[in-house]
Amino acid sequence: MMRFDRVAVIGVGLIGGSFALALKAAGICGHVVGIGRSAANLQLAKEKGIIDSIAAEASDADLLLVATPVAQFPQVLASIAPRLKPSAIVTDVGSTKRDVVAAARAALRGRISQFVPAHPIAGAEKSGAAAASADLFRGKRVVLTPLQENSAASLQAIEAAWTACGARVSRMSPEEHDAVFAAVSHLPHLLAYALVHEIAGRSNSAQLFGYAAGGFRDFTRIASSHPEMWRDICVANREPLLAELDRYAGKLRALRPLLERGDGAALETLFAEARAARERWLSGEVE
Amino acid sequence: MMRFDRVAVIGVGLIGGSFALALKAAGICGHVVGIGRSAANLQLAKEKGIIDSIAAEASDADLLLVATPVAQFPQVLASIAPRLKPSAIVTDVGSTKRDVVAAARAALRGRISQFVPAHPIAGAEKSGAAAASADLFRGKRVVLTPLQENSAASLQAIEAAWTACGARVSRMSPEEHDAVFAAVSHLPHLLAYALVHEIAGRSNSAQLFGYAAGGFRDFTRIASSHPEMWRDICVANREPLLAELDRYAGKLRALRPLLERGDGAALETLFAEARAARERWLSGEVE
Repeated sequence: MMRFDRVAVIGVGLIGGSFALALKAAGICGHVVGIGRSAANLQLAKEKGIIDSIAAEASDADLLLVATPVAQFPQVLASIAPRLKPSAIVTDVGSTKRDVVAAARAALRGRISQFVPAHPIAGAEKSGAAAASADLFRGKRVVLTPLQENSAASLQAIEAAWTACGARVSRMSPEEHDAVFAAVSHLPHLLAYALVHEIAGRSNSAQLFGYAAGGFRDFTRIASSHPEMWRDICVANREPLLAELDRYAGKLRALRPLLERGDGAALETLFAEARAARERWLSGEVE
Repeated sequence: MMRFDRVAVIGVGLIGGSFALALKAAGICGHVVGIGRSAANLQLAKEKGIIDSIAAEASDADLLLVATPVAQFPQVLASIAPRLKPSAIVTDVGSTKRDVVAAARAALRGRISQFVPAHPIAGAEKSGAAAASADLFRGKRVVLTPLQENSAASLQAIEAAWTACGARVSRMSPEEHDAVFAAVSHLPHLLAYALVHEIAGRSNSAQLFGYAAGGFRDFTRIASSHPEMWRDICVANREPLLAELDRYAGKLRALRPLLERGDGAALETLFAEARAARERWLSGEVE
């Protein structure tokens, strides 16, 4: 059984904290040290038993999880590089992967083989150590985007760690990852933010919001996501996201004439196909 | 206290059935007759106590609720017109109002004053009498779109009926109603259907759906809505909906350059403003 004697979690928020709790619950880690910018959050994490100690740097860790906002990665990776043990593995939880890999290559250089990029697909509406839970990743997907420099042993160790957290692990290239998530995650966030912003900017926005109901609430739920996090994701992944945005705008342009000429049959077909596809997805046939 | 001795519900589905149950629970109706195309559904409604009897026509009703799909309104209204008591009030639950009013004027002619158009804003994902509940409208909004021919007494009677169901009643013109709901309901449905259909049509759709998570699920929940119902709404309300679609497409075009030049500050401002507007709405400040 793989085991990590010393784990360093850099950024003990919902994701980092939940990873630590899940490793502890699985009994596959020893001492967990927490590193972060908010002393109050680290203190809370220690009181909750998420971390065992608080430190300024991750000098002797066997496993380092970088769970800060992605925009901080260059600085975080630069700070851990000089003291990295040759046997240590560094991994992350960033929502975009090409930019994370580029930042890791720049910061870790000759030690890039020690960095295994990963992305757990888990909700992030709540935040901070207070929201962390050992069960957050149970049944969720985690995508590893291996580098050609990674050893098979490092990849297996990270895969085993996430599996121990209850997650289903799969692998893609960083490019494929970023294209897939631009389509099914980043674009919907952009669309939801755009709709709410559009409605909010009108002179009769109070009236419009007054009649918005459950459908609007669910459609726009992701517009309550963290603005800085989504700023970073959109900027980091802008080429694939632009391609998705253009594709979607093209879809709306193709749909427009159906509406304009009142082509009920064509609209019904499109709606029925969309509903059927969504039901297949929900029932697990699509996978 | 206003009371309806004989109520006819034409279309005893989720909405019609719930209205009947709510009137009964409030103790403001006598005999409820159910009219509809599905004998099995009517039988179920009778067994559940939603209706007291099943009939082919609503000859002596004091209150008639038209709760069929909107596309059937011309035919339904034409069938009730000849036998309408001079003291009876006809109302409806259609999601669009200009087309319903036009259909009512064509069918009821000199008796148009007896038709009070209404739209209860209540979920419609489940359907049929089986899903009906006396509490469906509790705390929900109902919009009346009065006609200049309506008497004050008829409007007050319908308002009182919905208030007795626990709803919050307000009034708008049919034009204003259709414009408001094009923005906060019809457009989001169209956008959600379009996204799912776009993803489903790709060669790698299985992979894409395989990584879609909770955000995608909520964003697209309304793409599981009833295709025929949404076909009718889109066709009936196509001018306001086209205006909303064009406006939204313009919003996406305005957003595109922010993304293209990686303008994180502008994106963050837009996201933060959208989130703040949504939070104000959810907390009830917008009303």
